[in-house]
Amino acid sequence: MTGAVGATAGARDLAVSVCRRAHARVEPALRAAVDRLPRHLARMSGYHLGWWGPEGEPTGRATPGKAVRPALAYLAAEALGAPAERATPGAAAVELVHNFALVHDDIMDGDSTRRGRPTLWQRYGTAAALLTGDGLHALAADTLAAPRTPRAAWAVSLLTRAMLATLRGQEYDHSSARAPWRGPGSVTLADYRRAAAAKTGALLAGAAAIGALLAGGGPRDVARFALFGHRIGVAFQCADDIIGLWGEPARTGKPVGSDLLAGRKTLPVLAALASGTDAGERLHTLLAGSEGRFGEAELRTALELTEAAGGRAGAEAEARRQREGAVEMVAALPMPVRVRTELLALADHLTARER
Amino acid sequence: MTGAVGATAGARDLAVSVCRRAHARVEPALRAAVDRLPRHLARMSGYHLGWWGPEGEPTGRATPGKAVRPALAYLAAEALGAPAERATPGAAAVELVHNFALVHDDIMDGDSTRRGRPTLWQRYGTAAALLTGDGLHALAADTLAAPRTPRAAWAVSLLTRAMLATLRGQEYDHSSARAPWRGPGSVTLADYRRAAAAKTGALLAGAAAIGALLAGGGPRDVARFALFGHRIGVAFQCADDIIGLWGEPARTGKPVGSDLLAGRKTLPVLAALASGTDAGERLHTLLAGSEGRFGEAELRTALELTEAAGGRAGAEAEARRQREGAVEMVAALPMPVRVRTELLALADHLTARER
Repeated sequence: MTGAVGATAGARDLAVSVCRRAHARVEPALRAAVDRLPRHLARMSGYHLGWWGPEGEPTGRATPGKAVRPALAYLAAEALGAPAERATPGAAAVELVHNFALVHDDIMDGDSTRRGRPTLWQRYGTAAALLTGDGLHALAADTLAAPRTPRAAWAVSLLTRAMLATLRGQEYDHSSARAPWRGPGSVTLADYRRAAAAKTGALLAGAAAIGALLAGGGPRDVARFALFGHRIGVAFQCADDIIGLWGEPARTGKPVGSDLLAGRKTLPVLAALASGTDAGERLHTLLAGSEGRFGEAELRTALELTEAAGGRAGAEAEARRQREGAVEMVAALPMPVRVRTELLALADHLTARER
Repeated sequence: MTGAVGATAGARDLAVSVCRRAHARVEPALRAAVDRLPRHLARMSGYHLGWWGPEGEPTGRATPGKAVRPALAYLAAEALGAPAERATPGAAAVELVHNFALVHDDIMDGDSTRRGRPTLWQRYGTAAALLTGDGLHALAADTLAAPRTPRAAWAVSLLTRAMLATLRGQEYDHSSARAPWRGPGSVTLADYRRAAAAKTGALLAGAAAIGALLAGGGPRDVARFALFGHRIGVAFQCADDIIGLWGEPARTGKPVGSDLLAGRKTLPVLAALASGTDAGERLHTLLAGSEGRFGEAELRTALELTEAAGGRAGAEAEARRQREGAVEMVAALPMPVRVRTELLALADHLTARER
């Protein structure tokens, strides 16, 4: 559980089934929420979520994506002894926010495919996709606020704080891609850490915290589950950064080194540049000279140098450290054995190299 | 007060001073909210709000725009006998939503200037402006939810419902511009009415309702002020539609007939087309043949035919009807004389032809 980065097959299977269950639980609430959007926006949301084809025809398929955030919300509620269903508004809200961010990210990044289909803006135009994202965003807060209780207001707060933190991560992604690798205006490892915490950690933290809150948890429970979600979020991001450089194209759908090609300043390369090794210096020379354009041979060399300078091992160690912190937390809290096992499997699976 | 559309100079001056006072009251809360955004997004928000120039230098100017929504929130609170300040979180939230919508609208419409300066996307790029709008949107709900009370959750609900309704109006604007003037797929007067209520009425209704709620009002107070805001919102939209066709370019900064040039299906033209008059039929022939491109002479003819078919008078009558409904409501409610006078002046000013 705490050794090398890589989940056992058993943990992976369990995590997948936990996510499937969460998905089945949250989907009716998601559909009910989307139904409250204006007609065209509801249709576009359903297209993005994989429910309907581009002409509004049912695909017969479930929502694609992993429902990781709903799974965390449900497990946090169950850990506190509440029935999972108590967390459903929270599970729906975090999934709506996640998808609002995806729709807007695709516009900002100019990405033309997602989940094997044209992205929303590509299919319906930028204006319509922008508006659909705004609708999913408004629905998320609306879903949580509806009971008009103090806890509902608190849940909205947790969600909006997570959203504001997520924006900080998105801002990093966009501003860091134009930053130099070193010197004035460059991004540092510290910048990266803040951004990774914000980008992935904040919404996973929010999902777990809102689940604990809706289950009747107090401030300490909420804070604990927020930290758990935060840690697996950061570990997830580290693993994602490794995949973004060394992932197999057949599995990721992206070329080897895609983060480098996109100018993304991610952990392995920043750690390599800060390593003080010969390989790190050679990597810097190569990156500074490339101005973001790489031939195949240069890209291979850059990846080798990053690995030789300890960038990959550093990212793996960071993922492990965060995951172990999360695992220790869950081990120390009283909760049903089944819930603990599932939380650990989810943490393991999310932060593994192969997902 | 209830005669022809057109505010007296006295009402206009009073309304302007009410808005100035609201603006001074809400601005510190707006600045505090924007300060919580990530640094770049805060700077861009400040640029949009007119606080800072493009390089972050203070302009020494106040927030441009009219602070109409904050003014409504404050007056609703005062009408119920509460100190105006109780409504400040609501006033800030509705102003944040209004500005989030403007930032995203400018992207969707491709508009390159606002308030005499380059629009946010024009100055900083689409991705950055999109993200800034998302930040203002998240801040709005965050501002209301913070007290973690049942009333806070209710206020968030009122805001998110208003936002979802606003999206319905924006959807109309974007889908109706491509619709034909008559026949299959065309928009009707009924479509227009729903959209106008949604586009402008919803957020003004939300502003007044949230002000009443934060002042300690019960469900009936909230519903009454929502209806008041709704009515002056619809009246405002009717007046705006008249300005969008016959407004003086020197005052509006837009060419005569700008709504027609943009293909917008607004009340005067839809009413003229539905009038059953000869002028209405000739207007239809002209519009159907133009395919959205007008020479100067054709545009002048289209405006004359709209007026001859009663389109302008119809829009004026609708504005008057809605305004009178709002005025009657306020007259029937017990409230301090000063507050009533100011509410009526605001209603008058907002729904007048000259603003």
